[in-house]
Amino acid sequence: MINLELRELLTHIAHLEGVSALLSWDQEVMMPGNAVDARSRQSEVISEQIHRLHTSDEFRAALAVNVNLETGEVHSGVNSIENKALVLIYRDWKKAICLPVSFVSEFSYLISQSQHAWQEARAKSDFSIFAPYLEKVIAKNREKATLLGFKDQPYDGLLDEFEPGMTSAELTPLFLRLRESLLPILKIIVQMQPGALALAGKFDVSRQWKVCQKLLSKMTFDTDRGRMDQSTHPFTTQFHPTDVRLTIRLNENTPLEAISGTLHEGGHALYEQGLSPEWFGTPIGEASSLGVHESQSRIWENCVGLSLPFWEGVYPILQEAFPELLNVISLDRFYRGVNYVSPSLIRVDADELTYHMHIFIRYEIEQLIFRDGVPVSDLPGHWNRLYQDYLGVAPPNDALGILQDVHWSCGLFGYFPTYTLGTLMSHQFFDQALLEIEGLEDDIKAGQFGRFSMWLKDKIHCHGRGKTAKELVMDICGQEISEVSFLNYLKTKYLS
Amino acid sequence: MINLELRELLTHIAHLEGVSALLSWDQEVMMPGNAVDARSRQSEVISEQIHRLHTSDEFRAALAVNVNLETGEVHSGVNSIENKALVLIYRDWKKAICLPVSFVSEFSYLISQSQHAWQEARAKSDFSIFAPYLEKVIAKNREKATLLGFKDQPYDGLLDEFEPGMTSAELTPLFLRLRESLLPILKIIVQMQPGALALAGKFDVSRQWKVCQKLLSKMTFDTDRGRMDQSTHPFTTQFHPTDVRLTIRLNENTPLEAISGTLHEGGHALYEQGLSPEWFGTPIGEASSLGVHESQSRIWENCVGLSLPFWEGVYPILQEAFPELLNVISLDRFYRGVNYVSPSLIRVDADELTYHMHIFIRYEIEQLIFRDGVPVSDLPGHWNRLYQDYLGVAPPNDALGILQDVHWSCGLFGYFPTYTLGTLMSHQFFDQALLEIEGLEDDIKAGQFGRFSMWLKDKIHCHGRGKTAKELVMDICGQEISEVSFLNYLKTKYLS
Repeated sequence: MINLELRELLTHIAHLEGVSALLSWDQEVMMPGNAVDARSRQSEVISEQIHRLHTSDEFRAALAVNVNLETGEVHSGVNSIENKALVLIYRDWKKAICLPVSFVSEFSYLISQSQHAWQEARAKSDFSIFAPYLEKVIAKNREKATLLGFKDQPYDGLLDEFEPGMTSAELTPLFLRLRESLLPILKIIVQMQPGALALAGKFDVSRQWKVCQKLLSKMTFDTDRGRMDQSTHPFTTQFHPTDVRLTIRLNENTPLEAISGTLHEGGHALYEQGLSPEWFGTPIGEASSLGVHESQSRIWENCVGLSLPFWEGVYPILQEAFPELLNVISLDRFYRGVNYVSPSLIRVDADELTYHMHIFIRYEIEQLIFRDGVPVSDLPGHWNRLYQDYLGVAPPNDALGILQDVHWSCGLFGYFPTYTLGTLMSHQFFDQALLEIEGLEDDIKAGQFGRFSMWLKDKIHCHGRGKTAKELVMDICGQEISEVSFLNYLKTKYLS
Repeated sequence: MINLELRELLTHIAHLEGVSALLSWDQEVMMPGNAVDARSRQSEVISEQIHRLHTSDEFRAALAVNVNLETGEVHSGVNSIENKALVLIYRDWKKAICLPVSFVSEFSYLISQSQHAWQEARAKSDFSIFAPYLEKVIAKNREKATLLGFKDQPYDGLLDEFEPGMTSAELTPLFLRLRESLLPILKIIVQMQPGALALAGKFDVSRQWKVCQKLLSKMTFDTDRGRMDQSTHPFTTQFHPTDVRLTIRLNENTPLEAISGTLHEGGHALYEQGLSPEWFGTPIGEASSLGVHESQSRIWENCVGLSLPFWEGVYPILQEAFPELLNVISLDRFYRGVNYVSPSLIRVDADELTYHMHIFIRYEIEQLIFRDGVPVSDLPGHWNRLYQDYLGVAPPNDALGILQDVHWSCGLFGYFPTYTLGTLMSHQFFDQALLEIEGLEDDIKAGQFGRFSMWLKDKIHCHGRGKTAKELVMDICGQEISEVSFLNYLKTKYLS
């Protein structure tokens, strides 16, 4: 058994993390503008306390009851799942004690400055405002990688934070293969598809909201254990499996943003609601990796939400909500419009195919930084060159180019690849679901998502970090993580 | 100067208190139902941390730099306001170190059980479900009073927590005089007033909401430093002077609840927004007492919001919002309806006169408990007898009787008297405001509350705990806290 003292310390830390998540949620969704400074300090106070507790003598002593702190060997007297948990608890602890409190608070202070600079730089479309901060953030990330330790190159130490066990040595060839397969498919699609869908008129946002609430409920999201709100940048967070919150953005020019947002964030939210409350505070009660998390959002957003059966079911509901705007557009035309593929400048607006080109570009820039030591001042040039090479578009300025994403200003390097990994896994999982759940497409058409949601919970959610991304894909699909399912899906959908 | 280490520790604690307040706000306004247990644990974790920090060796050492910890004497080298702050910081610290961590967590656990029992007891209208918990809560409060220390009787130790410096020896004769003066006034009013206002029809809640937002903004509430929401039980809270939040309840049967709620909670909220951010974390940045806080809500709710000038200004706006329902009712009739006085069973629904009878009853029950040691099982009998004696009404059951208020289940004894003290002070302050602000009634009629709001901020808010209730009333009005202003107001308003 995991000793009670350790369980209590872990639960205590997890509740502090819940509090920290509430502070962020409230900041995005509720907080009045002038409270930013006070909120930063509140968040800092909680983060410091988490780090202090995690690296305390108390925690060390409790962990030592179950684990040899020198070797990491788990003492006997625990079952296999407890053993898994303890291995991860030990690994997390080793990482935490590598980072001095001073490093953690300096980093956190730097990030708040850097985010501020990024916002200003983006507003003024001037990379030079952000550059000195980005330089510092990169240096701190190098330092972090060194403190945490890595085998091959520093970047792997960062990647491992988001996608445990994944390395550049695996990612680079996978991404290369994928890119080379996507380019010819993209070329054909762009030539043969009809024009983009032009929606005219205003889609009443309160009617959109109702449609999304209904959809979320059909996805089996439990509103007694969570809620949906609106925010400028949609996100999902959780304070505990009994309190999972997602946000979407309503856009009066199109209902598609709200619907895909509900599916995407709803997928994340179902993962969090599906985690085991009994294991709360331990790795078994946590999501496996960012990639697996993204697989859960993408499986709903893309595999379900861009499919014909889905729109056969949902389009009539949407037409009923907006008869004057949509009755003139046929299901077939609408479905093709939803799946319009076209190279563009902005990652978050990209279609399901070109999206990954945006990721490859970011991955390559991150490699240039951490592997090749390319100076920060050269990055906008590389960015623009890669957009031209991969997508054939030229960013007219930094705001629509290298300044478009928040991630780097937050110190997140090694995060972007998980978006593509998640998509690849989502298609592997979905292919398996189609095999295992008889009549799944009929369910989707009928808006009955119960069996599918339960399948995801049983196969993926309930294991938490007890299974890595690779283990999940192997156990569920009998495969390695690969691009095959995704490519087959694209070919069947767009080229046949 | 107050040493930096101490300032930082105080700020740290104040930010944790802000976090704790956010956890409560979110629980009332946002949180999904099933998250109650997780939220209780989150709150507990933060409360324990606050207590631990406040009673730490670190805090003791920092305090010792400015204060002799044996005698409480403040060392030289501070100015008069810093001296005031340090006296209070020392007093708060002495109280904190009197309470062992085990006492604090036992008390907190008992309260969560007791609140649960109270909810069930009220729902079933069965005092016996709540009685055993109430007994324990009373015992814990006795223990607390003993730990904190008191001069005359244990109840004074509890009262001092909410209204520093106030004692039963002062309160009892004040309340007695007030009750004896109110009884004959009540008798005359009830005989001579016209019938209650009967509002028919439904008042659209979104239109009510707009009226209330406009009113709050006219009160000079700053929405960049706070927000208004809805909740079942209206309240105001703050996480920092830059983040003050109030809630109101919308009732489709009457717009009066929302308007009086906006004025009442808005008054509390303006007090919090008026506190000094420079002194955040110190007593100078905190509200003086619960009584003073209540004076700020009552001055807006009653002195302003039940006056004829106020309704001369607001009633046309209300008629414009609900023409079909209100155009048939004259201003005079409406104003008299708003001020309808009548004995009733429920404190929170009471008019401005009989309200205090409800307080006297609770004060007397608290005296019976702590002074006379009356057993808990006898309390409903005393409650019903006192309602008969003071108000001539007979509670038909415990839910409409002794179980109506949440306070005792939360362990709050000595809290109720501050409601009446606050009202008395509000009339003393308002009389002075009428003398000092030329044309105040014209301002109120015109809905221009800026000068009044600024007067309150300058005279009261900005001093924080730097002035006690008694000092504020003396400095502003040149008087002791007394019933005279309130009684004069009632006689002028209702009997002339």
